[in-house]
Amino acid sequence: MGILVVGSVAFDSVETPFGKADNVLGGSATYFSTAASYFSEVSLVAVVGEDFPNEHIDFLKSKGVDVNGLQKIPGKTFRWQGQYDYDLNEAHTLATHLNVFERFQPKIQEVYRKSPYVFLANIDPDIQWSVLDQVEKPKFAACDTMNFWIESKPDALKKLLSRVDLFVLNEGETREFAKEPNLIKAAKKILSYGPKTIIIKRGEYGALMFNGNSIFSAPAYPLELIFDPTGAGDSFAGGLMGYLANTDDTSESNIRQAIIFGSVMASFNVEDFSLDRMRTLTLKEIYKRYKEFKQLTHFEDIS
Amino acid sequence: MGILVVGSVAFDSVETPFGKADNVLGGSATYFSTAASYFSEVSLVAVVGEDFPNEHIDFLKSKGVDVNGLQKIPGKTFRWQGQYDYDLNEAHTLATHLNVFERFQPKIQEVYRKSPYVFLANIDPDIQWSVLDQVEKPKFAACDTMNFWIESKPDALKKLLSRVDLFVLNEGETREFAKEPNLIKAAKKILSYGPKTIIIKRGEYGALMFNGNSIFSAPAYPLELIFDPTGAGDSFAGGLMGYLANTDDTSESNIRQAIIFGSVMASFNVEDFSLDRMRTLTLKEIYKRYKEFKQLTHFEDIS
Repeated sequence: MGILVVGSVAFDSVETPFGKADNVLGGSATYFSTAASYFSEVSLVAVVGEDFPNEHIDFLKSKGVDVNGLQKIPGKTFRWQGQYDYDLNEAHTLATHLNVFERFQPKIQEVYRKSPYVFLANIDPDIQWSVLDQVEKPKFAACDTMNFWIESKPDALKKLLSRVDLFVLNEGETREFAKEPNLIKAAKKILSYGPKTIIIKRGEYGALMFNGNSIFSAPAYPLELIFDPTGAGDSFAGGLMGYLANTDDTSESNIRQAIIFGSVMASFNVEDFSLDRMRTLTLKEIYKRYKEFKQLTHFEDIS
Repeated sequence: MGILVVGSVAFDSVETPFGKADNVLGGSATYFSTAASYFSEVSLVAVVGEDFPNEHIDFLKSKGVDVNGLQKIPGKTFRWQGQYDYDLNEAHTLATHLNVFERFQPKIQEVYRKSPYVFLANIDPDIQWSVLDQVEKPKFAACDTMNFWIESKPDALKKLLSRVDLFVLNEGETREFAKEPNLIKAAKKILSYGPKTIIIKRGEYGALMFNGNSIFSAPAYPLELIFDPTGAGDSFAGGLMGYLANTDDTSESNIRQAIIFGSVMASFNVEDFSLDRMRTLTLKEIYKRYKEFKQLTHFEDIS
């Protein structure tokens, strides 16, 4: 089963306590589709400028990503510049140049309109809505967001949530969006806006899933070296959606497994700058780390 | 198998966003021994002043705690005053009156010197050392500490760690003590000081255990109402040590189960002020919540 992802493709300049990378490949849809490509067919809809080199497109193709929906138009590609301190949980944005992304109005080609799995990466909730308007009701639609939209377009975001099955956001955003300091209460409030499942990303503390009355707590993989957290959330979503699409099973139990695959992809992604770790990553390594997650959380039941 | 615990018995005055409690029963050894009493015999060595009422002693006795080592001496009982904001992870100390605790030099009576399980609650590491000098080498010794001792007596603490099997501390203390921002590296550095196992308490994010090359990640129980986090760490340690002593099994696998029982006890304790939740808590409720922890973390393996 194939996935349609709509989001950004960008150049990132990132500095962490462990080094820096200038004008490297980035963007939410890039991380998402590369991570998802390990599990499933994935089609990318995004826009870049004339400065976007073919080598990046070739990289995505080499991962099996369908890039026919990646438009190249006059102007410059979206650029983001950020910096992380030793507390790698939070990115400090130094500069954002939307460039061609500023006028991005995704047109979903006929061939993608029946995609059973749709991921709306972090963009304006009105644009996310317009994507859902253009596709036939997907089997499973998921979206991400960011604090900027929570603050500037909370009502559009709430409206969107009535049309998605899964909403992925981070811990601070959860509290901010629900206006509620207790995370469990905040999650339940957001569930009441419509999505059947929400997943709260907690960086080095893992993730929490809420689905009906069920809660799943997933750990993060304990890493001694985190080079660059950029794209961790999108790699997480890519692994998660990729596994769901591959198994074509959106049961609560399968979403739990998908969250672990998402966590595995995020844990690999932060081991190097940009998407560099995924350039060499193998499926064998992914399965090995899944097993390590199993061992990391195992404890015996009591009779 | 019995446990000896040495620590504080105190009066606490606590204010949280959900209410306040004045001059209620508190103290590290009080929380520890009450939580441990659900699983094991526990003997308390501590000191209180003449103002300490018999009703508190009767409460401990009603839980089966051996209070023969609880000395009442001239002067006032240790008093702590603290406050929590909506971020319940951190206590703000408003006042500390050590009173009789200032001159506490625990004398371990003959009858306690062969205790197979010993817990050194948060006190001066030199006093913790003096307790170990007075007992026969226990089967399993564990200790807690706090940032005050990490900053004022790091060498005494390091020396102590060569004599304990388990060191329990919180996340910020781990980074501070090891002078290392990465938690995994920090944990490994502290393991090199001697203890076979360290457990890092992360508040609402659960706990991480390091034992040799093995790491165990335990979640926290998702609570919608946390009334008062005071004593959570000591209740955690009490449940943990109580289960280890009851099963008399300190294998890595059994420590994992003990961590879950510790997490269960901490999760109940924060549901009310002081030790009030443990006044009515039953073993049946404890086992039920253990099962909920199992469900909270469960995901299927891959073949």
